[in-house]
Amino acid sequence: VTVACANDRMLRAARGERVDATPVWIMRQAGRVLPGYRSLRDRHSFLDLARRAELCAEVTVEPVDALDVDAAILFSDILLPLEAMDVAVDFRPGPVLERQDPSSLPERLRAPDAARDWSWLDACVHATLDRLEGRVPLIGFAGAPFTLATYLLEGGSSKEHEHTRRMMHSDPDRFAELLAFLADRTADWLGVQLSAGVHAVQLFDSWAGLLSPADLERFALPAARRVFDRLAARAELPTIYFAPGAGAALASQPASGARVLGLDWRVRMADARALFPAMPLQGNLDPGALLGSETQLAARIREVLEGAGAESGHVFNLGHGILPMTRMETARRCVRLVHDLSREMRA
Amino acid sequence: VTVACANDRMLRAARGERVDATPVWIMRQAGRVLPGYRSLRDRHSFLDLARRAELCAEVTVEPVDALDVDAAILFSDILLPLEAMDVAVDFRPGPVLERQDPSSLPERLRAPDAARDWSWLDACVHATLDRLEGRVPLIGFAGAPFTLATYLLEGGSSKEHEHTRRMMHSDPDRFAELLAFLADRTADWLGVQLSAGVHAVQLFDSWAGLLSPADLERFALPAARRVFDRLAARAELPTIYFAPGAGAALASQPASGARVLGLDWRVRMADARALFPAMPLQGNLDPGALLGSETQLAARIREVLEGAGAESGHVFNLGHGILPMTRMETARRCVRLVHDLSREMRA
Repeated sequence: VTVACANDRMLRAARGERVDATPVWIMRQAGRVLPGYRSLRDRHSFLDLARRAELCAEVTVEPVDALDVDAAILFSDILLPLEAMDVAVDFRPGPVLERQDPSSLPERLRAPDAARDWSWLDACVHATLDRLEGRVPLIGFAGAPFTLATYLLEGGSSKEHEHTRRMMHSDPDRFAELLAFLADRTADWLGVQLSAGVHAVQLFDSWAGLLSPADLERFALPAARRVFDRLAARAELPTIYFAPGAGAALASQPASGARVLGLDWRVRMADARALFPAMPLQGNLDPGALLGSETQLAARIREVLEGAGAESGHVFNLGHGILPMTRMETARRCVRLVHDLSREMRA
Repeated sequence: VTVACANDRMLRAARGERVDATPVWIMRQAGRVLPGYRSLRDRHSFLDLARRAELCAEVTVEPVDALDVDAAILFSDILLPLEAMDVAVDFRPGPVLERQDPSSLPERLRAPDAARDWSWLDACVHATLDRLEGRVPLIGFAGAPFTLATYLLEGGSSKEHEHTRRMMHSDPDRFAELLAFLADRTADWLGVQLSAGVHAVQLFDSWAGLLSPADLERFALPAARRVFDRLAARAELPTIYFAPGAGAALASQPASGARVLGLDWRVRMADARALFPAMPLQGNLDPGALLGSETQLAARIREVLEGAGAESGHVFNLGHGILPMTRMETARRCVRLVHDLSREMRA
């Protein structure tokens, strides 16, 4: 049972319903640029902030007050589900994990017992919802199966993604099995968040830009769909698929099964809207625009708002995570400009 | 005066003329995977190979024999023109240069005297053409102005490109001046190569994927056009623009003024052909396909060939530089498959 929200613009827009102003949240809003986060991070490890319920709640809710965003997103990391699959993950600060032998996958991975292994995740969501007091929705998230697979195969971030590409192009059947396994675990992980009360979920397919359109269709999109299909019982649930770097294959992305598509900043919002006149879209301001002048920022925000239109469902966001060198005041100004300009457009 | 080539498929296809088989060359074909290159590289610095005429010729021509490609591309680096602008460049092995203060640009940069400062480049092209003996065309190249600007502003490669984004979004007029300055220098640089006899030229806009479509149109494409316009006297010259990461803005790219568009592997070739029924296209096999099985490789090559069609000009290439871990035998097999399959398609 999800709690109703005083400000439910984000949920309404994600369902294609009318709203008084375009809702906005910012990828990476809970880390990086906020003083409360930075001060907590001086005293606690990243993993502590993500896994200890009171700390997670504090970090997750801070931007709602500090930036006036229309949604909170759970402070977490896409690699955290891997630990219960018996893959140790460390952050130094980039993720480091034991690189997995492709021929051992997916057999070598443990299937977690969601209720027991991820009870801490349930606690994090509950603590966060308590602290939010129904002001705005809480978005849950997970890494998409393809992206999780790249981390398992590379042992962390990678420039060339040699092992992923080698497996995908030499043993496509086993690779698809690995993705199916990860999809089921991801559905369980999101299931914990949903049972605890998150109002929407996003799949981050952060490395989708590695894939040709044909391989996106062959591997990443069916795996994402397998996740969303297992959540589909909840008919009103906003489900968001975000595949940065795959904008040239946007036309294929409804095959992810998501009800909302997230766009990176290299797609023109007006082009996406022309392709999907009725589909709710999320995005896609260039994060670099927050490093420039206020005039430039307002102009770029207006391009995104006008491209999306006010009628078909638009959740404003950046087209990628907020850059670490962004000033908090600029992020707040961005939120205010989205609200003000989108109200003007409706008037 | 350019020398005629015994195998001129690449030039004919780049002009949209009929050919017996689809021509193919491979980005980074002259480095990385060839034994002759590796052995020379053990004894000489990267800069020596690029600037000493006999070495440059040897490295440039090796893939014509070793891989049977239909074109050679001058062994060089997009940052080499910067030295004569009074910006020292080092390779360790990634490029390192003195980061430039945006407020000093472009005034702080020297305008090279092409004939004097780049006589070594003229010598490299001449030595290479001598060694090629008219077997295949020689492609010259340069970095596109936007990409050169990012290196000047960041002092090397960068993850966030903070300084570029900051300048572009806070002082767009000065940024455009910088690009115009670099475009004129780039035209001079390519002018040296053309006078010495290269048969085609490619602009690499390697960091174009940083840009929103609006900023691609505002900055990168007009700067590329300024380069090509200064070369336009040569009506039959194949000019190629390659902007990896900007595939979602492909429809805008003819504004670069190029006669051929290069595609990265995240664009579906058939989509590009539908957008540009009559424009010669170059690309765009996923470089990862060269790490997989021969069956997969042949299937992926066929997708690209069929997507491009045989009638409208297609120069086969990878959608990015060949991966360093690729086996030379696979690169050679790829070239043979392109020739064989494209001949079959025409039969």
